[in-house]
Amino acid sequence: MQKIKEVLSNLIQLSDTEWHTFKNLLSEKTYPAKATLLHAGKTATELYFIVQGLLRIYHLEDGKEISTYFACDDQFVSPFASLITQSPSFQYIEAVEPTSLYSIPYRRLTELYQASSSFEKLGRILAEQNYLCMVERMLILQTKTAKEKYLDFIKNNPPKIVQRTPQHQIASFLGIAPESLSRIRRELVTS
Amino acid sequence: MQKIKEVLSNLIQLSDTEWHTFKNLLSEKTYPAKATLLHAGKTATELYFIVQGLLRIYHLEDGKEISTYFACDDQFVSPFASLITQSPSFQYIEAVEPTSLYSIPYRRLTELYQASSSFEKLGRILAEQNYLCMVERMLILQTKTAKEKYLDFIKNNPPKIVQRTPQHQIASFLGIAPESLSRIRRELVTS
Repeated sequence: MQKIKEVLSNLIQLSDTEWHTFKNLLSEKTYPAKATLLHAGKTATELYFIVQGLLRIYHLEDGKEISTYFACDDQFVSPFASLITQSPSFQYIEAVEPTSLYSIPYRRLTELYQASSSFEKLGRILAEQNYLCMVERMLILQTKTAKEKYLDFIKNNPPKIVQRTPQHQIASFLGIAPESLSRIRRELVTS
Repeated sequence: MQKIKEVLSNLIQLSDTEWHTFKNLLSEKTYPAKATLLHAGKTATELYFIVQGLLRIYHLEDGKEISTYFACDDQFVSPFASLITQSPSFQYIEAVEPTSLYSIPYRRLTELYQASSSFEKLGRILAEQNYLCMVERMLILQTKTAKEKYLDFIKNNPPKIVQRTPQHQIASFLGIAPESLSRIRRELVTS
């Protein structure tokens, strides 16, 4: 649990009591590769912190999977819209690789928001991070060439995500055809 | 100032002292129609609360204005990404009609976040609202027909925004051609 404590302490000031309260909310869970943690249509009830593994968030457009978020070790992740509105999710969350994580019940987390200014701050930071991720992806989709999009993706994501995510999932995240991504990757290797 | 106090009290619990601290941060400003409150490339330093008027947020795509947010009386509004990162905005904010508003310096607001759990909660709510607005617009753009998009727009926005925003700005918000919007509006009137 050292890692989640460290990540949390980088975001908010945390007393020993607050840490112990938070720690007691965590359940450790593991999922095999390709497991679906949440199906669209279901309401998200948990925030996740990945201990080790790789998760992806996607939704369907005309039956096609559009990936919108990848997360790996030491990151918080959730289908955020569903979580904060407590309404059915339009997104799926799936394990790309075998993944172990801590799950935090959202209802209990909101009780912590009310009990402590530090946790309220955590709630603000999570919302701001989710907002900025959406803005960043929207801007990348709108303003960059396919090659620039991929270079941005490499720069802004942990190597684990870049190296281990299937190429067609990265292509859908970048809004480019899988064949274009293959060509760009070949060009980058030989250039 | 009764209205902003009322809106704020619906979002967070506010002591008299907290209200007075907040009130002291407000400056009243007025802008004529078509005034630009923030240019892209500049960093947003203020959160706005509209007393009376109509504002729009837009950015340029291939030289074309894409509207992404409209706000009118009694709403908080800001170019949020620039505000929370304190980096240059990719968005413009413009008065669609003559607008009077309260402006709140973001730096001072973040001091309130630190000083009080209630204001930290306000920060969380603002971030969550901005996030949900983006998600909602993305979903509307991706999954609805042009007519459904416009009906959703009517349903989800105050009448003032629906009635007084120029049609081409609504069309760009909905990702449809101005001619399609005119046709849809004619059909709705005659149906």
